Amino acid sequence: MLLENLLKQIDFIKEIDKVKYIQRKTKLFNSDRHENDAEHSWHLAVMTIVLAEHANEPIDILKVLKMVLIHDIVEIDAGDTFIYDTQKNHDNTNEERLAAHRIFGLLPESQSADLIEVWEEFEAGLTPEAKFAKAMDRLEPLLQNTSNEGGTWNEYDIRYNKVFEKKKVIGEGSKTIWEFAKRLINESIENGILKKDTPK
Amino acid sequence: MLLENLLKQIDFIKEIDKVKYIQRKTKLFNSDRHENDAEHSWHLAVMTIVLAEHANEPIDILKVLKMVLIHDIVEIDAGDTFIYDTQKNHDNTNEERLAAHRIFGLLPESQSADLIEVWEEFEAGLTPEAKFAKAMDRLEPLLQNTSNEGGTWNEYDIRYNKVFEKKKVIGEGSKTIWEFAKRLINESIENGILKKDTPK
Repeated sequence: MLLENLLKQIDFIKEIDKVKYIQRKTKLFNSDRHENDAEHSWHLAVMTIVLAEHANEPIDILKVLKMVLIHDIVEIDAGDTFIYDTQKNHDNTNEERLAAHRIFGLLPESQSADLIEVWEEFEAGLTPEAKFAKAMDRLEPLLQNTSNEGGTWNEYDIRYNKVFEKKKVIGEGSKTIWEFAKRLINESIENGILKKDTPK
Repeated sequence: MLLENLLKQIDFIKEIDKVKYIQRKTKLFNSDRHENDAEHSWHLAVMTIVLAEHANEPIDILKVLKMVLIHDIVEIDAGDTFIYDTQKNHDNTNEERLAAHRIFGLLPESQSADLIEVWEEFEAGLTPEAKFAKAMDRLEPLLQNTSNEGGTWNEYDIRYNKVFEKKKVIGEGSKTIWEFAKRLINESIENGILKKDTPK
C-alpha cells in the first residue's frame, strides 16, 4: 500500500517539473529575466512564512503554504494567465479545473482529493487562508514591477485604475500590507512608472 | 511596530530573489537545463507535502517546509556546494553560518533568530524533521539523474559507492523511500548509467 502510494507520488513529482518551464509575464527584481511559476511559488511560500503575522484573521500557515506552492500547477495544462487579461481570466476556470483533476489525479485518491480541495479553496478566495495566499500572489509582482521601472505596467500599458482594482484584494488578506502596497502604488505614480489616466 | 517589521521583511523578500540565479549542478528532468535553487526548493516543498506519510517518525510538516524552503538561501553569499565536492563540503560551514546571520538578519529579530535556528537544525540533521528534509534534498537529484541518463554521475565521474554513501541518509528520514531509492540506484547500474567500480 505504502509502496503503491509512493509510485503514484513519484509520477506526480516528475510531472510537476514542468512548472519550471512556465514563464510568467513579470520579471525578477531589477531584472530583464522572466520569472517562472516554480520560482514564483517558492517566493510566495517564503513570503507567507515571514509575513503571516500581518494577516487580518488567524490563519493556518500550513494550509496557506499548500495553496501558494500548488496554485500554479494547473498551468502545466492551462498555461499562465496574465492577471490583466480580462478575457482569459473569465474563461479559463474550466480548463484549469480539468488540469487540476488530471495532474493531482496522479496522486493516491485521498491526497488528490485533498489538494484539489485546497486549490478550489484558493481559487474561491473566501477563507482567511485563501485571502492571505491571494494577497501574497498580488504583492510579489507589485514589488517586481516597482523594482523594474513599471515592468509589465509599462510593457502592456496597464494604468492606475486597473492596478488599484487588482491589488486591492491584498487588503482582504492583510490591511497592513495593503497600506504599504497603496503607498508603493502612489509612489509609482509620482515617479512616473505608473500612469494615472486610462488608455484611449 | 507592525510597519517597522514589514519594511524589514520586504527587504528580506527582495534580497532572496537572488536565490533564483544560483545554478545547481543537477539538471531538470529529462533536460539539459540546470536547475536553480528556488526551483529546487519549491520542488522539495511539494515533495514534502505529498511524501510526508512515509516519514519514519511523526514530523511537524510546517517545520520541514520551512527547512526546505530556506535551506539554500545561505548560498546567496556562500555559493552552491556540489554534494560530491568533499573539500568544500567540509569547509563551507562557517561561510554559510555568516551568510545565515547576514541574510536572515535582515528580518525582525525574533523572526531572524527563529529562521537561523530552523536552518541550524536542518544542517545538524538530527531531528525527525531535519532527517526528512534531508531525505527530500537527496531524493530529488536522484530522480533527476536517473531521468538524465546518469546526469551529474557521468558528468563528474561519480560512481556507485559515493552515490550509495550520500543517498543512504534518505533511510534516516524514510525507510520506504530509501527502499525505493536503492532500487533506482541498482537499476541505474543495470542500465549502465551508473558505474559500479571506483575511479582510478
